[in-house]
Amino acid sequence: MTEIAPAEPRRAGRPRSEGADRAIIEATLDLLADYGIAGTTIEGVAARAGVGKTTIYRRWKGLESLICDAVAELKGPLPTLPGTSIRDDLLALVEAAARGRESARNRKVYACFIGEMARYPALDAQYRSAVIEPRRALTRSALERGVERGELRADLDLDVIAEIVTAPTLHWMLHNPDRNPTRQLLEQFLDGVLHGVGRS
Amino acid sequence: MTEIAPAEPRRAGRPRSEGADRAIIEATLDLLADYGIAGTTIEGVAARAGVGKTTIYRRWKGLESLICDAVAELKGPLPTLPGTSIRDDLLALVEAAARGRESARNRKVYACFIGEMARYPALDAQYRSAVIEPRRALTRSALERGVERGELRADLDLDVIAEIVTAPTLHWMLHNPDRNPTRQLLEQFLDGVLHGVGRS
Repeated sequence: MTEIAPAEPRRAGRPRSEGADRAIIEATLDLLADYGIAGTTIEGVAARAGVGKTTIYRRWKGLESLICDAVAELKGPLPTLPGTSIRDDLLALVEAAARGRESARNRKVYACFIGEMARYPALDAQYRSAVIEPRRALTRSALERGVERGELRADLDLDVIAEIVTAPTLHWMLHNPDRNPTRQLLEQFLDGVLHGVGRS
Repeated sequence: MTEIAPAEPRRAGRPRSEGADRAIIEATLDLLADYGIAGTTIEGVAARAGVGKTTIYRRWKGLESLICDAVAELKGPLPTLPGTSIRDDLLALVEAAARGRESARNRKVYACFIGEMARYPALDAQYRSAVIEPRRALTRSALERGVERGELRADLDLDVIAEIVTAPTLHWMLHNPDRNPTRQLLEQFLDGVLHGVGRS
């Protein structure tokens, strides 16, 4: 498992670094939005953030860690699930997935990221382990509780259920990089997949 | 509405052109898989296909048309829907969506394409009108028949149903660029969304 690097600078606790860290992260996101992973370099980030390359390398192991961190920051921390019902938990999860898309820039970063990542195996592995896997594990634990409490069908593969409940929101966002999903839309997706779209 | 260009060369019917057309399309897909849209140029395609730039410009209006055509070729023609039931129609639609992913190269093209496209408005518009919209219209007509025949819930927005029934397959493929979905998986997704994953 790959670890993301930037815990250290925070531990070092130099107030000046935090401003630089923020500028570096923002510059990375700006470049990702405009040029994708292919057009994002340490040199470019340094120039845009107004820092030296060594300042970046003091905080991040390399470009993969920096990009991974910048996108992870957009996502924010893992949501806390209310645990009151499977519907409440899943709504918290899809709302968290839709977070960080407030600006056009951030939506552009998301739109390109997943697909382009496939061409960068080291970044792909790091992002999956640091960002995607913890979210999958949280989703899975919510689904397991839902099955235990009899709220979800027990005859379906949990991976299949996980895909069905999260895909409409994630796919909609990918195809609508210029908009944010409303809470009402997220609920329509969720209720649609929980109750089924067919008449049985 | 933008039209895709390459009807003309076929009408012209010069056997030599078809070989060149194929080489140009394949070169375009090779470059898209390796470097994305950002790294695909008419110059690069010409060099890789072993043709002059003028040969490309004789057949395509420009880079957008060429890229749009190359990816549309992967997708193949619109599927013919059996019309026997909503399940049969939707299965035909998601199987068609999963087509053209036989090679690792083609899966790479798909993975990057949708997201990266958001940075190229002219290509985005052309691809949406030439490839995405006809598929959406076909899906919509299948869903309308499903509602009329009482197979689908009539209280849900058709766009919401369309997203729910197609997203699991499309999203799964995006996150699994190294694999192809089995027919069994497509059926699990489909039956899951038709019957619902919740216990009601």
